[in-house]
Amino acid sequence: MRIAIDMARETVGQTSPNPSVAAIVVKHNQIVGVGVHIKAGEPHAEVHALRMAGEKAKGAEIYVTLEPCSHHGQTPPCAEAVIEAGIKRVVIASNDPNPKVSGRGIRMMREHGLEVKTEVLKKEADELNTPFFHFIQKKEPYVRLKTAMSLDGKIATSTGESQWITGEEARLDGHHYRHRSDAILVGINTVLMDNPKLTTRIEGEGRHPIRVVLDTHLRMPPSSQLIQDDSAPTWIFVGVHVKKEAVDTFENYQHVTIIPLHGEQVSIEEVLRYLGEQKITSLLVEGGATIADAFVRAGKVDETVTYMAPKLIGGKEALTPVGGKGIQQLKNVSSFEIVSTENIGDDIKIVSVKKGES
Amino acid sequence: MRIAIDMARETVGQTSPNPSVAAIVVKHNQIVGVGVHIKAGEPHAEVHALRMAGEKAKGAEIYVTLEPCSHHGQTPPCAEAVIEAGIKRVVIASNDPNPKVSGRGIRMMREHGLEVKTEVLKKEADELNTPFFHFIQKKEPYVRLKTAMSLDGKIATSTGESQWITGEEARLDGHHYRHRSDAILVGINTVLMDNPKLTTRIEGEGRHPIRVVLDTHLRMPPSSQLIQDDSAPTWIFVGVHVKKEAVDTFENYQHVTIIPLHGEQVSIEEVLRYLGEQKITSLLVEGGATIADAFVRAGKVDETVTYMAPKLIGGKEALTPVGGKGIQQLKNVSSFEIVSTENIGDDIKIVSVKKGES
Repeated sequence: MRIAIDMARETVGQTSPNPSVAAIVVKHNQIVGVGVHIKAGEPHAEVHALRMAGEKAKGAEIYVTLEPCSHHGQTPPCAEAVIEAGIKRVVIASNDPNPKVSGRGIRMMREHGLEVKTEVLKKEADELNTPFFHFIQKKEPYVRLKTAMSLDGKIATSTGESQWITGEEARLDGHHYRHRSDAILVGINTVLMDNPKLTTRIEGEGRHPIRVVLDTHLRMPPSSQLIQDDSAPTWIFVGVHVKKEAVDTFENYQHVTIIPLHGEQVSIEEVLRYLGEQKITSLLVEGGATIADAFVRAGKVDETVTYMAPKLIGGKEALTPVGGKGIQQLKNVSSFEIVSTENIGDDIKIVSVKKGES
Repeated sequence: MRIAIDMARETVGQTSPNPSVAAIVVKHNQIVGVGVHIKAGEPHAEVHALRMAGEKAKGAEIYVTLEPCSHHGQTPPCAEAVIEAGIKRVVIASNDPNPKVSGRGIRMMREHGLEVKTEVLKKEADELNTPFFHFIQKKEPYVRLKTAMSLDGKIATSTGESQWITGEEARLDGHHYRHRSDAILVGINTVLMDNPKLTTRIEGEGRHPIRVVLDTHLRMPPSSQLIQDDSAPTWIFVGVHVKKEAVDTFENYQHVTIIPLHGEQVSIEEVLRYLGEQKITSLLVEGGATIADAFVRAGKVDETVTYMAPKLIGGKEALTPVGGKGIQQLKNVSSFEIVSTENIGDDIKIVSVKKGES
């Protein structure tokens, strides 16, 4: 099962809106088939593994990181395929959180006389698909807040200098979170100040997330990289008062979509609901401080990724990663759980997950 | 040597202004004497170990975490004692950074025909006495800045609520740094806001550091705990304009000393120089944000101890651990090196040391 989990881990980020899954068919203590789910619309991991095993699947065991599905989606149900292949024992790590599936695949296989063992290395396997499980249950993307700051919590000096606080290794590491996210979100102020491209720069071929901008008054300059560069879609959420003529400015850009919301101010809840409807399972929030605060106050941050440089900058006026109004009382602050700390170059990376998410 | 280093580690904080040292005498692969330096004015580690070994020291080896001294201080030179005891081989971890000693003890022993091996587990042994080495070389205390903050760098909410951001384990852990420090320093604003006692609360008997307050205008209320509680000395640094009558208010408190400085504003450099003259080898700076900034801008923070709670508080106006004016340009920011990260309860502790100190 550990090998299957390692295999599934390699596909994190590329299977959305599906989960990352791997399967291994074992007969007489030998691996006779392996499979991973590569991409939504393509065969599931079990199908690949069973095809590879062919006749050898008869009487064999299958190890699969997620409960085989029981419903007809874009592909036929895997539980049926497992039964038809003549597998006699099934070992499962994660249960499927999808109400359409959970437990049904297991029941179906047991009814056909297969031995089914569940929750083997469940925790490790669950971690691979935390965003997927969140998305299935809440119908909203899993939100990661990525920040980079000094040891005293500053993202810039008091004069606004911010490039760079963390080192190159940490900045490169951050791009892996873009690769793993369906969408990346920033506020219009970040666009006006930094004019970022928000694409993924990693070794090999990175996946570019959809670029989402919260821009109540549609101040987006057509000259900005997010408009001029069409290597990924750009979605701009605007308030209800934005005029049609302003929206029309962008009609020649095929990759740009302007999405009017229902309020005068952009609402985090409405944005997340909309993104969920568009099957965005994971969202990376990269700033700025006011946007981060809006997510924090809405209680919508599910995971934090904090890069911290061992530097002391100081300054009462220096920007911090989460600004805005903030939460007034400590009793209303959500607690997270630290899941990892890691040295990256001279810096440190701290990942924490909202309590109840992990 | 590893055992000797572990023994010496147990005495960190109690030997000031002397270093922590342990010695082990070995003969025929058996330990025949052990010693640690307990307290300034008492015998050095080597003397204890040689006394314990008695006649067995003849022809034996001695492992000592710091080069034996060669000068007559409060006790006779240890290098002589080693020679007289008939030791034939000496294994040393740290060199003595004291210009009066460095290399001389080693030379003296070699001239008497002893075999001397140096720099064995030097790094580990050096770490025990970083503050001592710093003090000997700079004649100023080694400054640790201790902070406790949220994942987004806040030490309080925007309404000023600060108790508590970190958990009980982290707060207790912080007391070990009081025990290990000769003095603890805060600004007058921290006294006025929190009325702290600044004593050490750890299991067993903790050592209370001398309590130092920077208080330019002598606003210290006689009713505060630092004045009413006499379990440790309280030293108050004041500016040149403070009047004699104000100083006289405190003359009945034996444990309180008012120290006038030469400028209108309290100067960090002058404070550290004075503390060094008083043989304060290590200073723990606990706040507030403006004081921390003064140390940061003076480049006088040697080590940082940061407790971070996995919480997001937010707020542009919320206090951060280092406030004040701050450093304006990133090129002027001193870099630290992360030496450890550790989970403490739900929180994380990050220790970093100024580059060039470790």
